Amino acid sequence: MSRNDDFCAAARSLLGERGFTTDPELVDPWLTDWRGRYTGRAIGMASPASTAEVAALVKLAREQGVPIVPQGGNSGMSGGATPDASGDALVLSLRRMNRITRLDPDAREAVCEAGVILQTLHEAVAPHGLRFPLTLGGKGSATIGGLIATNAGGTQVLRHGSMRAQVLGLEAVLADGSVFDALVPLKKDNRGFDLKQLLIGSEGTLGIVTGATLRLLPALADRVVMWAGLPDVRTARRLLIHAEKMAGDALEGFEVMPRHSLNAVLAHNPRARAPLAQPHEWNALIELVADSATAATLADRAQAVLESAFEAGLVEDAAIAMNDAQAEEFWALRDEIAPAERAIGPAMQHDISVPVASMADFVAETLPLVEARFPGCTAVAFGHLGDGNVHYHVLAPAGAPRGEWEATQGKEISQFVHDLVTQWGGSISAEHGIGQMKVGELARLGDPVHLAILRNVKQALDPQGLLNPGKLVPLAPAPASH
Amino acid sequence: MSRNDDFCAAARSLLGERGFTTDPELVDPWLTDWRGRYTGRAIGMASPASTAEVAALVKLAREQGVPIVPQGGNSGMSGGATPDASGDALVLSLRRMNRITRLDPDAREAVCEAGVILQTLHEAVAPHGLRFPLTLGGKGSATIGGLIATNAGGTQVLRHGSMRAQVLGLEAVLADGSVFDALVPLKKDNRGFDLKQLLIGSEGTLGIVTGATLRLLPALADRVVMWAGLPDVRTARRLLIHAEKMAGDALEGFEVMPRHSLNAVLAHNPRARAPLAQPHEWNALIELVADSATAATLADRAQAVLESAFEAGLVEDAAIAMNDAQAEEFWALRDEIAPAERAIGPAMQHDISVPVASMADFVAETLPLVEARFPGCTAVAFGHLGDGNVHYHVLAPAGAPRGEWEATQGKEISQFVHDLVTQWGGSISAEHGIGQMKVGELARLGDPVHLAILRNVKQALDPQGLLNPGKLVPLAPAPASH
Repeated sequence: MSRNDDFCAAARSLLGERGFTTDPELVDPWLTDWRGRYTGRAIGMASPASTAEVAALVKLAREQGVPIVPQGGNSGMSGGATPDASGDALVLSLRRMNRITRLDPDAREAVCEAGVILQTLHEAVAPHGLRFPLTLGGKGSATIGGLIATNAGGTQVLRHGSMRAQVLGLEAVLADGSVFDALVPLKKDNRGFDLKQLLIGSEGTLGIVTGATLRLLPALADRVVMWAGLPDVRTARRLLIHAEKMAGDALEGFEVMPRHSLNAVLAHNPRARAPLAQPHEWNALIELVADSATAATLADRAQAVLESAFEAGLVEDAAIAMNDAQAEEFWALRDEIAPAERAIGPAMQHDISVPVASMADFVAETLPLVEARFPGCTAVAFGHLGDGNVHYHVLAPAGAPRGEWEATQGKEISQFVHDLVTQWGGSISAEHGIGQMKVGELARLGDPVHLAILRNVKQALDPQGLLNPGKLVPLAPAPASH
Repeated sequence: MSRNDDFCAAARSLLGERGFTTDPELVDPWLTDWRGRYTGRAIGMASPASTAEVAALVKLAREQGVPIVPQGGNSGMSGGATPDASGDALVLSLRRMNRITRLDPDAREAVCEAGVILQTLHEAVAPHGLRFPLTLGGKGSATIGGLIATNAGGTQVLRHGSMRAQVLGLEAVLADGSVFDALVPLKKDNRGFDLKQLLIGSEGTLGIVTGATLRLLPALADRVVMWAGLPDVRTARRLLIHAEKMAGDALEGFEVMPRHSLNAVLAHNPRARAPLAQPHEWNALIELVADSATAATLADRAQAVLESAFEAGLVEDAAIAMNDAQAEEFWALRDEIAPAERAIGPAMQHDISVPVASMADFVAETLPLVEARFPGCTAVAFGHLGDGNVHYHVLAPAGAPRGEWEATQGKEISQFVHDLVTQWGGSISAEHGIGQMKVGELARLGDPVHLAILRNVKQALDPQGLLNPGKLVPLAPAPASH
């Protein structure tokens, strides 16, 4: 305890009263991940106000061998920001570093400290006729640093890419307390491999993201949201290819939902309305957008996409949102799937990807395999078909006891799903990261060559293993591949 | 010699007669870089025909401690593919691995072996109504593997990004002979930091790229090429911002040339014609493009860009190419600058970048500094203003002896230019890489934190230092920063 007391005293002295606390009332809310799956303990919580303070704190922690768990909005999906049960680790909150330090409308760049909340950034750039082209459900809590550390995705990846594609510059504190400063955005820079890329998606295991320069895009001048009823998921894939050809860069969203998911939403939310008169086995939600340079032709292009899709026999029925309110209603149907299905009963949820070209076949072929292997369960896939990424849920048999069912059945179901994904050349983590939740599965299924590189790079940049220990990198050698 | 003889015998046995040679007639042409600046020696040249052969060869080289210099088209600009003078290293040519193994028009993906020549890829995808959105002067020799290893740029980076942005999947042989297989393209994959990104731009120092999955785009349905006369380079920057706002995604190229460069081309090539009646201090070459979805409106948009630029006082005069032949003439003026200026006399050329937002100021402020510091010299900058990347040439005083002038003056001039670039937060290598040419300058000017990461990752992935030794990574500790 005295080593810990020493550390806490030194941290408090370094960061001041606002910058360090051990008060359980203040610390405890941040020791459980927002899904409530993991709860840890901590030596205390630091909230530095600047990159220099982060660097000094990391040096202090290193001297005393204190592990550090960086944390942004604590809205990650894989327990990556939750400390372990030992109580040895320090939670390092970046939330006080929440300034947008520069906003250049001409260059279309914003420089943010790590703790800037996504929604705050959206609101700050809008008055300049700009937008930040990434959004997701947790936008009211997710921070720029966390989004970078997890390479977050969302519904706009189809056109704009994940967080990686938005990062023009980056600043991070490394394990030795040095500051990696690459905030200056250079569109071309070939001074060796791109070190920014190592930190993006590293979940705090290689360094602590303290700031970033982000790209902005012109605000949308118009959008058209369409809903299409489809006979099967393979037709959805053909419709996507069709829409890409017809709409080109205007295609900003393409989400698919099976009948089961739409029904769950309609049952869960009495105000929700089905966009089409008849039910269809599959549904596609399509968004076309335009900036001011292309807005004039957008409605025509949307009409043309649907008409030619009808002629090609790709859609059974379709509707175009008449106005913004209806467009929001269409999107709400998509966004409410997860809560609606949770209301039905327990489920194992999987965030997986396969090549875009294979996703329709993967869904069509593997859902029956899952249901055959786990009788009574319902397997449902929905989401970002255009990214080769679906949320793949296995719903418990009717009446299965919540909590107990997941505890007894969950691991076997998830392993079965992950095995299928791996056979199809896919990823067991498309957008939620590995965190602590999937570190075992990554060790079990990861390519030994990939795992060796992960370990070697981790060892090279954090030889003491103090940055977010237990997350992402399976440190034990993986079993030999067969 | 006997160790070398053993290695050669084993390599020949592994790869066959076509796969290994020590014949000076066959090897010597590949021991000098194409600019003729560096000449090395080699133990022999291997030309494996498959990834498995590359892997076996790397294992063999590792056992015997033989350094490997990977080589594609040998058209790099920084000596990165040329062995040193010791004669200890093996040149590993990827040129026999030249198959496009898969081309999927629906998914818009091509899987290429490393030795596929860029122009071959362009020609292979065109019949499918597709294009590969990266091109450069050396397209007839540059290979996909080399383009990836150097993260090549070109004139389309403005809209489509450098080679990094085109790589959907990657395969490489690592220093221990293991095969890193990430060829399967996953649009979303968050199983840790993206290991592909480490290999892109690593110049063969971390692994040998053996194949890649590349993204393709719809073929162009139309393009409009414009030439604008401008009073100064800062106006060029304002015109760029204007064109981005008006033309949006249609803006594919924006190159700038000073009066000096255009004059050099007109003097060098008697058939070249100036696009505008009067000379202007600066010129901008602007290309707008459209695929079939947006072609209908392209001519109108181009007209609107120029008209409003006139109204805003951004251009002095302008011309729109009347047809494809004239468009090619406009581009030829840009492409002939380098040879035209070489014809004038010796010059020190620099491939540098600063933030896009700063480039106009950088050019305006630093050219006079260079000319003041080196009396009689002429400093000229031209190229990719929209990428923050210009070719920054310092031309010798009239009558300076070619060869001798570069040898006596060159280093001091380049250091002066690189110092300026560094003061402005820029990069001493925008698109040509570090190779052996700039490794000293990188050590001198690189941020010690960046250099430490480069070294640590190099050490982690190639502990014996056998992959392209002497290139890119300054292994000696950098002097302390001041």
